[in-house]
Amino acid sequence: MRYRHPARDQIRIDGVLSALGHPVRLAAVRVLDGGGEHNCGSVLTELGIPAKSTMTHHWRVLRDAGVIIQEPSGRENLLTLRREDLDTRYPGLLDTILDGARTDETGA
Amino acid sequence: MRYRHPARDQIRIDGVLSALGHPVRLAAVRVLDGGGEHNCGSVLTELGIPAKSTMTHHWRVLRDAGVIIQEPSGRENLLTLRREDLDTRYPGLLDTILDGARTDETGA
Repeated sequence: MRYRHPARDQIRIDGVLSALGHPVRLAAVRVLDGGGEHNCGSVLTELGIPAKSTMTHHWRVLRDAGVIIQEPSGRENLLTLRREDLDTRYPGLLDTILDGARTDETGA
Repeated sequence: MRYRHPARDQIRIDGVLSALGHPVRLAAVRVLDGGGEHNCGSVLTELGIPAKSTMTHHWRVLRDAGVIIQEPSGRENLLTLRREDLDTRYPGLLDTILDGARTDETGA
């Protein structure tokens, strides 16, 4: 199954913020930003989430907001952070958000 | 009625993003960022929203996330953007978000 993704100029800031404004989705994006090739299963493993169904909604929100690309590859779905699209449209946004997540994590 | 507000170090990035990830709340924060003294009524007027009740929930979300201070002043509620708290905890975040809102507005 092929998914629809918004073009770069269809991305909207409130959609991106709303998508990233959930702890599980933000954690998933941090995994994707860590580099390497990821599919749904590998992200779940890194996050320690057992149920795949839990994430189906979250992937959709991230996809619809223009934050990730989800594309079928064999029996899995490859996931890619749309870093270039986001950095071009909203310079610095993703980095300040990921820095903020680290700030929360280290306690402040 | 006095409202509760999180201390600066209780603010969490997912709460801030979720709060700002709604077009009405983001628009309200842009009004507050524009400077000047604001109360609920003056923001509603600037946004062209007739019903005060519509905003009660939104003010609460922004308050609980640590984005605004809402405090009683006579018969009204003064609203203040917590810029210093946000800029200290998440440097650059608010500015990149407000820039992003302008990008969306001017079309791209």
